[in-house]
Amino acid sequence: MNTLLLSLLLAVTAQAPADLLIRGGTVVTMDGEHRVLEGGTVVIHGARIESVLGATEPLPDAAQTIDATGHLVIPGLINAHGHAAMTLLRGIADDLALLEWLESYIFPAEAKNVAPDFVYWGSLLGCVEMAKSGTTTYADMYYFEEEVARATETVGIRGVLGQSVIGFPAPDYETPEEALVGAEAFIEKYKNHPLIIPSIAPHALYTTPLDIIEKAHAIARKHGVPFQIHAVEPPQENDQMMERLGKRTIPALDDAGILTPGVILHHAIWLSDEDITRIAGSGASTSHNPQSNMKTASGLARVPELLAAGIPVGLGTDGPASNNNLDMFEEMDTAAKLHKLVREDPTAMPATTVFHMATIGGAQALGIDDRVGSLEAGKLADIVLIDVRAPELTPLYDVYSHLVYAIKGGHVATVVVGGKLVVRDGDILGVDENDLMERANEIKAQILRSLETP
Amino acid sequence: MNTLLLSLLLAVTAQAPADLLIRGGTVVTMDGEHRVLEGGTVVIHGARIESVLGATEPLPDAAQTIDATGHLVIPGLINAHGHAAMTLLRGIADDLALLEWLESYIFPAEAKNVAPDFVYWGSLLGCVEMAKSGTTTYADMYYFEEEVARATETVGIRGVLGQSVIGFPAPDYETPEEALVGAEAFIEKYKNHPLIIPSIAPHALYTTPLDIIEKAHAIARKHGVPFQIHAVEPPQENDQMMERLGKRTIPALDDAGILTPGVILHHAIWLSDEDITRIAGSGASTSHNPQSNMKTASGLARVPELLAAGIPVGLGTDGPASNNNLDMFEEMDTAAKLHKLVREDPTAMPATTVFHMATIGGAQALGIDDRVGSLEAGKLADIVLIDVRAPELTPLYDVYSHLVYAIKGGHVATVVVGGKLVVRDGDILGVDENDLMERANEIKAQILRSLETP
Repeated sequence: MNTLLLSLLLAVTAQAPADLLIRGGTVVTMDGEHRVLEGGTVVIHGARIESVLGATEPLPDAAQTIDATGHLVIPGLINAHGHAAMTLLRGIADDLALLEWLESYIFPAEAKNVAPDFVYWGSLLGCVEMAKSGTTTYADMYYFEEEVARATETVGIRGVLGQSVIGFPAPDYETPEEALVGAEAFIEKYKNHPLIIPSIAPHALYTTPLDIIEKAHAIARKHGVPFQIHAVEPPQENDQMMERLGKRTIPALDDAGILTPGVILHHAIWLSDEDITRIAGSGASTSHNPQSNMKTASGLARVPELLAAGIPVGLGTDGPASNNNLDMFEEMDTAAKLHKLVREDPTAMPATTVFHMATIGGAQALGIDDRVGSLEAGKLADIVLIDVRAPELTPLYDVYSHLVYAIKGGHVATVVVGGKLVVRDGDILGVDENDLMERANEIKAQILRSLETP
Repeated sequence: MNTLLLSLLLAVTAQAPADLLIRGGTVVTMDGEHRVLEGGTVVIHGARIESVLGATEPLPDAAQTIDATGHLVIPGLINAHGHAAMTLLRGIADDLALLEWLESYIFPAEAKNVAPDFVYWGSLLGCVEMAKSGTTTYADMYYFEEEVARATETVGIRGVLGQSVIGFPAPDYETPEEALVGAEAFIEKYKNHPLIIPSIAPHALYTTPLDIIEKAHAIARKHGVPFQIHAVEPPQENDQMMERLGKRTIPALDDAGILTPGVILHHAIWLSDEDITRIAGSGASTSHNPQSNMKTASGLARVPELLAAGIPVGLGTDGPASNNNLDMFEEMDTAAKLHKLVREDPTAMPATTVFHMATIGGAQALGIDDRVGSLEAGKLADIVLIDVRAPELTPLYDVYSHLVYAIKGGHVATVVVGGKLVVRDGDILGVDENDLMERANEIKAQILRSLETP
């Protein structure tokens, strides 16, 4: 084929009509080579990215074009752990010893108020906050998880939603056995949903019998869905497990066959070298939630060792009651700085490592890196535009430095999930914020009333 | 006097015309009783607060009224330590060992570029960022401090501005002796300025001879202005001073008579119990800069012990090159959480303590609490309005929890300094941001060119 013909053919291919172009920005791909394309274009067809083009490549026609001049164009952030509905309890109590906080405030407030409506409105509040601050996929563990799914769909972001299973009566199911049945029904209902990745989420080994956790794991394996569990978050968990099971948490889970691909261990703070070796060989992953772990004084996960062992680590905010917001940019900033201080090493956890955790690393941790986490042809079009034309972001020397140390959720301008606009120029689309805030305030009043009566 | 007459008189007094009313918000006074007035009003006459009124008190007439419905009304934040002009070096290098960072990037970039223009435009950038994120007073240490003063005046915020004195050739003065002369001239020029509180700032004991520091202190005492110095920031400083002077830093300063009222010790990380006792008895104060200390892995100041000893502690961002922004809300969030983690105590550094450090505590640390730091009759009208009608700030249970754990600089709506509007609905007044960013980008290009040539 002569070169002229080749050029023509390429030109024709490049000009096949697209649905959406995002052009003119600095595209931070997070692909295998960590390419950053100045003045690049993301070409979107349907829900997926068709191509990512450099500044000089010819562009196809498109139904819609977003001018990204002056913006960073990044993969949507992935919040690897949280409890979205707890937005409704944000700030209800802080600065207390963990047990007092849980037993005097959080558990009573939940016991008296967690119902389908609470979960729907609280999750909607959380999803709006996450979308506006650049999170396009989040992992969740809560009760009435179908309501979480409904809220997630309403906002139009992606959720890895785990129906809780816990060893005592919960707001949605009286027994863990009933919760297992409910969780499986939830998985079956949402298995092929375009936005929801259903999941099963036994709370923790210290709250839930091991045989229940094994059954939950079997359900996850049967349906090929993610399995989420809190693991060694409180400093005393390993000792408790030694007493109860004669083993630390990680060996207990490992010996029961629960450390497999598709399993994400949230927090995973108190790990021995042997624990890390066991996780590394298993295909399981972890989430790192530094701000929550700081606020509850739970401890600091050994993230550099986990990453060195090849374990996928996602970054998460945890629930807003222990944070108290869902801004992944802040979480990145904290993750990058905290390890430096504690290790007395300013080279620990560089910005690129942290941004990786918040994007493709989080996707790997949740087992969805075939679909999201980077801007590459064939992946779902989950894309965030950040306006960097602001005094506090000027000058810009290095995109990763800015993304981790300077940019915050409030700088997010536009968010696309699965090719659809969810946030435009800072405004959420498709949700009436005033109505949402009014409902949230009504529920707050109800919560306060409920806590007045014993 | 009969009650009718008294009521009439009070009504007349209350109706004396004011220049500005800020009414209808939740006024967080930070006065001695930490009063929070729902639907309260701040009455401003000239540069000062005339009164702070509860929801039911009669309001005077006023030339201008700002409706603060749905807003928190707080004292302007006080950033107790920084180097505003270093905005121009924000993100030029990160994640490096401290010495490599300083010697390969920061010092060469400064040596080749710090000139009056650099300082003016960099400080302007910093002042705009600080004003927009709710800081109304900031402390600074840099070169060509007169340019910092010019930028501070342009934006209209308040600066405690310290002309640097350092033991090696600096961009503005070849010798520390010349810097002392320059610093005194700077102090004399700005001594009665409505916005600028001039100050003298020897860099640190490890960079500046003790006799120079003593002379700087004498100048500060002579003019009654603040004296600023970096103290025991690097982990090795005490050892170096033991070797050079036979004393740790704090005893060396104390024995030289330098720990007096009006002295602020920035960072003050590596303190022994004896050091704390010496500072506590002296009238000197400290600043706490957690984000910078994390990023450079310098260590964590013993703030709870400092506060317990009655030492005023302000909160600071430090320079934007080691942070990398100037958002005091983030700094509060980090300060509150970090001590909890490191002390394994979730009750450490509660939100009220941290908000105190960022307002009236910072004013005490800088010796200006007679003028700023709280919303009280007679104080300067430095006031920040935060719009809390946002999904990520809903619901609101506790104002201090929100201020420390949920609100960020981006939520600041309106800023008043000395009775004058500086920021309105998120927009800076009186500075052309596009022009500012253009100049900053030109200087960035010049910095990068300068680093290419050896």
